[in-house]
Order: sequence, then C-alpha cells, then structure tokens
Amino acid sequence: MADRAETQEAIKVQGEVVRKLKAEKASKDQIDVEVAKLLELKLRLGGDDVKHQFVLKTPKGTRDYNPKQMAIREKVFNTIVSCFKRHGAETIDTPVFELKETLTGKYGEDSKLIYDLKDQGGELLSLRYDLTVPFARFLAMNKISNIKRYHIAKVYRRDNPAMTRGRYREFYQCDFDIAGHYDPMIPDAECLRIVSEILGELDLGDFHIKVNDRRILDGMFAVCGVPDDKFRTICSTVDKLDKMCWEDVKNEMVKEKGLSEEAADMIGQYVSMQGGMDLAVRLLEDPKMSQSKQACAGLSDMKQLFSYLELFQVTDKVVFDLSLARGLDYYTGVIYEAMLGPAGATPPPPPPPQAGAPKAEESLSVGSVAGGGRYDGLVGMFDPKGRAVPCVGVSIGVERIFSILEQKAEAEKVRTTEVQVLVASAQKNLLEERLRLVTELWNAGIKAESMFKKNPKLLSQLQHCEESGIPLVAILGEQELKNGMVKLRTVATREEVRDSCVCVCVCNSLIAIKSRQC
Amino acid sequence: MADRAETQEAIKVQGEVVRKLKAEKASKDQIDVEVAKLLELKLRLGGDDVKHQFVLKTPKGTRDYNPKQMAIREKVFNTIVSCFKRHGAETIDTPVFELKETLTGKYGEDSKLIYDLKDQGGELLSLRYDLTVPFARFLAMNKISNIKRYHIAKVYRRDNPAMTRGRYREFYQCDFDIAGHYDPMIPDAECLRIVSEILGELDLGDFHIKVNDRRILDGMFAVCGVPDDKFRTICSTVDKLDKMCWEDVKNEMVKEKGLSEEAADMIGQYVSMQGGMDLAVRLLEDPKMSQSKQACAGLSDMKQLFSYLELFQVTDKVVFDLSLARGLDYYTGVIYEAMLGPAGATPPPPPPPQAGAPKAEESLSVGSVAGGGRYDGLVGMFDPKGRAVPCVGVSIGVERIFSILEQKAEAEKVRTTEVQVLVASAQKNLLEERLRLVTELWNAGIKAESMFKKNPKLLSQLQHCEESGIPLVAILGEQELKNGMVKLRTVATREEVRDSCVCVCVCNSLIAIKSRQC
Repeated sequence: MADRAETQEAIKVQGEVVRKLKAEKASKDQIDVEVAKLLELKLRLGGDDVKHQFVLKTPKGTRDYNPKQMAIREKVFNTIVSCFKRHGAETIDTPVFELKETLTGKYGEDSKLIYDLKDQGGELLSLRYDLTVPFARFLAMNKISNIKRYHIAKVYRRDNPAMTRGRYREFYQCDFDIAGHYDPMIPDAECLRIVSEILGELDLGDFHIKVNDRRILDGMFAVCGVPDDKFRTICSTVDKLDKMCWEDVKNEMVKEKGLSEEAADMIGQYVSMQGGMDLAVRLLEDPKMSQSKQACAGLSDMKQLFSYLELFQVTDKVVFDLSLARGLDYYTGVIYEAMLGPAGATPPPPPPPQAGAPKAEESLSVGSVAGGGRYDGLVGMFDPKGRAVPCVGVSIGVERIFSILEQKAEAEKVRTTEVQVLVASAQKNLLEERLRLVTELWNAGIKAESMFKKNPKLLSQLQHCEESGIPLVAILGEQELKNGMVKLRTVATREEVRDSCVCVCVCNSLIAIKSRQC
Repeated sequence: MADRAETQEAIKVQGEVVRKLKAEKASKDQIDVEVAKLLELKLRLGGDDVKHQFVLKTPKGTRDYNPKQMAIREKVFNTIVSCFKRHGAETIDTPVFELKETLTGKYGEDSKLIYDLKDQGGELLSLRYDLTVPFARFLAMNKISNIKRYHIAKVYRRDNPAMTRGRYREFYQCDFDIAGHYDPMIPDAECLRIVSEILGELDLGDFHIKVNDRRILDGMFAVCGVPDDKFRTICSTVDKLDKMCWEDVKNEMVKEKGLSEEAADMIGQYVSMQGGMDLAVRLLEDPKMSQSKQACAGLSDMKQLFSYLELFQVTDKVVFDLSLARGLDYYTGVIYEAMLGPAGATPPPPPPPQAGAPKAEESLSVGSVAGGGRYDGLVGMFDPKGRAVPCVGVSIGVERIFSILEQKAEAEKVRTTEVQVLVASAQKNLLEERLRLVTELWNAGIKAESMFKKNPKLLSQLQHCEESGIPLVAILGEQELKNGMVKLRTVATREEVRDSCVCVCVCNSLIAIKSRQC
C-alpha cells in the first residue's frame, strides 16, 4: 500500500467525475468508462466497500452464448466444417495472442483497433486481429509451402460494436485458405465454390458474390490519372460505394482527397460496371484500360476465373463488379465479398445509430457475410529470406449469420441437450433403483439422466421431459421392480411398453420415433 | 513521432544491453525479453530496418497445433463432449476476457498469474484464468438457478510453462458443472462418474481419483490445533505431499510457517490415511475428529458419496485420501483430483528442469489429469443480493492428455483430411473434365479433390493419394471420356472398376472398403 490516502483522494475526485457525467446525462459508454476507473481505484484500496459492487456484465462489444445460441452455433459450424472437409481441408490452431511485432504493419490504418496486452514483464503481446496473419506466420515458421487448411477461432478488434447487426469486438472467423504455387485461378475458383456451397446450405435466402482484382483497381486508378501515392486513399473511398451514393463518394475524392474532377468522373464510369466474363473481355479491349499492364493481367485472370466458375456451376452467383475494393493492405490479386440478397439489389438502410455511440465505420458492408482474396506477399513478410508462398482464402462472417439465424429461431423451441431418456420413479424411496438404472443406460452409451432429488414428484419429472424435449421416460414402480421389469413411455404419444431389458427397449423406441419422424 | 532522436538513442542503449547479455551467455529467456524490447523500440521508428527481423515464434508458453495434433485433439474432444452429452449437459460460451474486477479476489495467491490487457481507454480487462469464475458470473448475471452445462475453451495463466509435460500459458479446459439446490452428493457423485467414463474411454491406462472435503480438512486442522488464521497456508503445504516427502512437508510447516511440532505430527497421522466408505465411518468415530462439527458434516457426506459411487459402479476408481488439498480458494465441500497410474503408486519423477528456466511451481501435480469440487459460495459473490447457487464441477486436464496421446502417435500415420476420392487424369489437357467431375462429386456430398495443376503427372496424383490416405482415385482418360465412363481405382488394392455414374461407383466402393476393414 504505497499511498492509501492518495488513492482515497483519487476516489473522491473520480466519484465527482461520475456524478457530474450522470447529472449531464452523458452517454452510457462515457459513464461506464468512468465508473470502471472508479471501481479500479476502490479495488486498489481493497476491503469490504467494494463487495457486491460488481458491474455484472461482459466487456463492451462481447457477449455470452447461452445454450440455445450454442445449439444454433453448433449447427452452423457443422455445416461449414463439413464443407471445408468435403474440399479436402486440414485444420490448425494458433494462440489467441501473437508477439506484437507479428501483427505490426499488416493492417494499415486498422492497426489502431488491435488489442494489446499489458506489459507484465516478458514479451509484448497483442490479441489476434484476424486468422490470416497468424496463418502466414505459421507457414513461414514451419516452412510449409503448400496446404489447404481451415481455422475456426475468435479474433479481436477494438471497433465500435453494433451488436444487433452481429458486429462484436470478439467474434468468430471461419477461414479457409489454399497456399501453394499452382496454376492460376484454380484455387481462387474453388474458394468461390466453397462460399457458394456454404451460403446455399445455411439456407439464408438469396445471395451473390462480388469479385474484383487488386490489379484491375490499381490499373483503373492509373489510367484515370490518380497519382500513385493516392491509390490507397482513393481505393478506400471507392470501398464506401455500398453505403454511400456516387455523388458523396465523388465529393470525398475531389474535395477531401484533392483528386481532379475529371479523374473522379472517369472512375465513376468504371465503378458502375458489373458483369461476368463478358465484362472482362470488353474491358480488355477498352482503349484506356488496355494501356495498363496490371489491369490486363487482372482482366485475363478474371476471364480464366469465370471459365472455372462455369465448370464449378456457380456463375449464377458471381458478379464481376469494379466497385468492389476491400480494405486490407495485404491483398494482391482477386478479391471477393458475398452479400445476402439478389445481385444488384440496394442494401437495406442501416439502423439508426445508437444514442451516444459514435457512428461506426463499417469494415464489412451491410449484408456482407463472407469475404476474401489472394495475398501472395504476406508469407514472404515473415520469411527470413523473403520466400513467397502464394495464398488465396475466404473468411465466412459467421457472427452475422448467427444473428440472422438467432432472430429466425426466436419463436422456435430449440433443443439444447440430447438426452434420450429420463429415468423417473412413480413412488417414493426409489433413488437407488433410479441411479442403478441410469448407470445401466450410460454403460450402454445411451444419453440418460435422472433428477437429483431423493423423491421427485412424477409430474415434475414428466414436465422436465416436456420442457427439454426428452422423448422417452423410464418409469420405475414397485410392481415393475418386483417383476424385474421397467415401463418405458414415449412422452409425445404416451404409449407405454414394459420390458426386462431397458437398453434394448430404449433403442427400439428411439428407432420407432425416428421412423415416425421421417 | 514525439521524439525520434530519443528513440534512436534508446535503441543504441538497448542494443548494448542485448550484446552484453549474449556475451555473458545469459539465459535464452532473459535475452528474448531484451530483444523484444529492442524490436519494440525499432518498431516505434518504423521504416525498412525492421523488415525481416521478426522473431518467428509463438509467445512464450503457447504453441500452434498442426493438422496432426488437431486430428488428435478433435478425437479427444469428441470423446469428452459425447460423455458430457450422455449426461444431459448443455453448453455455453463466454468471452476470452472479463472485466478485471470479475476475476479479482477469486484465486488467492494465484491472482498474480492473471494476464491483464493494456489500458487503451475504456474498461480494464483480464484474460480468463479458468472457466469456473466466468460460469458463476454468467449464472448470477442471468439469474439462472439450475443448469448442467459444459464449456470447452482456452484459459490463460502467466505461469512457468513446462510444455513437454503439457503445461502451457494458454491451455484448454473442459469443464462440466452442475448448479442448483439438490439433495446432497448426487450431483457430486455424477461428476466422479463422468471423470471415470472419460478417462476410461480415452484409453490412457490405469487411473484413480482421490477425493476429500474442504470441511474435513478444516475440521482436521482445527482438532490438530492449527490456529484459524493458518488454515490456508498449512493447507497449501499439505497440497505439496504429492511432490514432497512427509519430512519436507513437516519441515515447511514447523520451520517456515511456525506450526507446533505436535500439531504437525498429528496432521501427519491423518494425511497418511486412505480408504473408502470404511475410512469415513472410522473417522466419524475418531475421538478427535468427531469433536469437529465441520469434519463430521464432511464425513457423513463422504459416506453418502461412496454409497452413490457404488450404484454408479466406480468405487474401484475412487480413493478417499486425507492428503488431497486443492489450492483454489472457492471450494467449500467435496474436492477431487484424478491421476494416471494405479492408486497408491509413486508418481514418476519430474524431468530435469530446462536450462535457464526457473524451477516451475506445479499447480497440477504430476500425473494429474482432472480435478474439481464443490463451490457453493462463488455465485453469491456475484449476485447483488448475495443469493447462493450451489455448484459442483470437474475440469478435464486435456493438455496433459493431448501430450500423452501425441507422444503415442508420434510414429503413427494419422489422417488429417477426410477426402474420399481424388479426381485424376492419365493424359494431358483434361483439367476441364476433372473440374466438371469433381463438381459432380461435391454436388453429391462426396469429399473430393483434384490437383490445382493443368497437367499433373499421374504418378504425383497417385503419390498424393498414398500420402494423405485417400482411399479412391477416379482416373480420367480419353478412352473413358469417349465412352462416357469413368475408371475408379481403390488405392490400396489397385482394383479398378468402370462405370458411367461416378457417384454411385464411389459410394459402393467406400462401402466395400469399410466392410473389408470391419
């Protein structure tokens, strides 16, 4: 206790700050921040005055998953993992934090959103911001030059959360990536096929996938007369086209970023173009575009990509869209983003901003549920000799998908356990018999439970079955015990059978229930 | 850039520090720490001089999982989750970090091992230290008074890692807990049954589970004349009995902790006792023990526990052992710990400490693979009105289990993908046909792949099947294509069949392979 009096003084001051904010009706966020500081000070003092003063909440931008949400999550993950496995992927895992320097210089402006750990002696650490950079670090560290892998794990961004729309500070990513030197566009096309399979199987309604290419964007900027050093900033303005109208985007380019009106108008013409292989062919013959070597390389590859997409039967889902410009620094070739709704539809208007919350900058546009692209340079940034391992991958935006499915399931009953049979008793003093029977069921691998009470009422046992959707109940009574029998009731139909072997009986009944459901 | 010159100066100084340590042949850990500081300084400057100077590693005490390790991990998790589900558990998830104050005051001396996040404005956060405290916070926050849940997730401890023995700073916990007001010892007994099922199914060889009770320990200390304020510290010395001989433990009690020799000797007599229900009965009649109300309550429950364990058929695995004293502050009743090896066996000697690493303090004793107990007061610490929710639970030490199974699998070939068929070609220029066929297989839900090359050699395609254990290969050739047929080869036997429908053909072959393996 270096200076108890000093801490007490600080508590007094901080208390004033909180009171003032409350009086001023400041935003909840602001107040929370100051209250947290106050509690931290009180904790330093210790003692009973802090007891029961806990703010009972999860950290800002995070949430717990309750059993129902977990049941939905499990179903979504199963669909996604099945698809990844169908395409021959292995899986890896990496630590939740990395050396700080591993993440440095990979995310451009977004780096300010990285969570750092406190320096408690030892290495400087940061929570992972995505799964792509750890993957590249893993490849370089283990000198792996080709792999098809998936990785499902949480990532962390100190962003402004918009939780109703599935935007959190802690959120899952489901990544599938293909690393290796291969013939152009074959792995890229498989990634798009995978997105299409997953979104189709998750039954989220109509969707479409926009594709573009970093080289086409850069070539376009060059031929439109954008100075080299403005490519990135103009690119990030173009990226806003899914949320802003062209006039506002143009305004930002010209007034804020100092681009000539002429150049902006030329960009405006290109970014309004959408199509398929035909558009790539047309642009290859465009007098301006064809002057850029970069653009031509991108356009030839786009043509090739569409020929493979045709074979993979997904051209109806994919649109070549020159306005697509994903933010991350590390993309070098094809980029794509999947959106719910039919192609060309206007995205739904964003909900009104929450009171007090500053307007969130979106990193994924409204309706976006997957995204990715080619990043051929990232692994080389980690390799001591700069050896490149070309990569292409896709990340499924599962949080948004969870949100949609949770909303759909709001009124539904979702089973959160898999119990097949409850061992119940109709009379008192049968605890031992129940425990003996439930043990027999567990021994046979049957999912079973019995209530943790000595003498539960039959009604409450039956209610438990109804509430948790348990299909069968084995009811013990003295008569049955005398005869060495057990009575098994199907909860839904109230049909009853008696048998001497409960395990056989349960298995038969489960089969019967299943066949009725089919 | 506040002060570039200052940073450059600091880099110079820090460079000297590193050079000096290297010259002195200081420990690797020490050097790593200083190198990390140096790199951090260089990062502040930015620029090209840091490029390719990455320390290519994961943070201290953490590791990546490669595909083979993941395949083992998946198998272990499947076994554990199946067991939890067989016992009717739901699952939840919580954020990886909690408000710092949520963790404060829950872990006693171990609190120093908690990872804090850097204060970047906003709330003060810490990485979760276990899954029990977040569970209690979840129950209080959602006013849940009964639930049977499992939670599998990573937890974080700034401990001295001993990675060869499966001790990491980031590690998985697999927790199963039962919350609610129930008749005594029924849920407690089910937890022990679960540990027994899981360790049996994981096929780790012989094992046994020690049980004791916080109340028996406290009662024992009281009747042996340990002053109230020394219970905790004497308890933590007793906890070392699995790694130290009695003489050393006694020495620590008497010389370091100032206990009377007489009291220590009395404790020595009790903590050498092991048994089953018989021991509980005997101690209930022990003239000294029976004077403590607490001890009697614990001993009666222990008797009851063993009667349920009998019904659950696990008494051969469980030993009532008065020397078991688990460290965590929050236990209030039964405690248990599972160890590999037969009951009463001396644990294997710990491996020699690694050069440079300080001697690790063990929080789990050698050979321990699961542990848990009853904690009836924890949820009440979070509830604004102090409402108690009694809980009992168990945590499976999967990292140690992974280590054991990884060592076992070292020489074995473990499949890391599930691909059923590779679509190959015997001649050149058949890429389109391959992609068309692999699409047909994906459409039918078959796990299939084709190489990402325009013209792969047949030999390299067959080698790929051998290496990754793909059982079938569909070989396209011009002759087959002309006839609208496909040739399917079973890789292991080289048997070949020709058919016009590849999907039917693959399914039949897979069934044939499976039946041969049975």
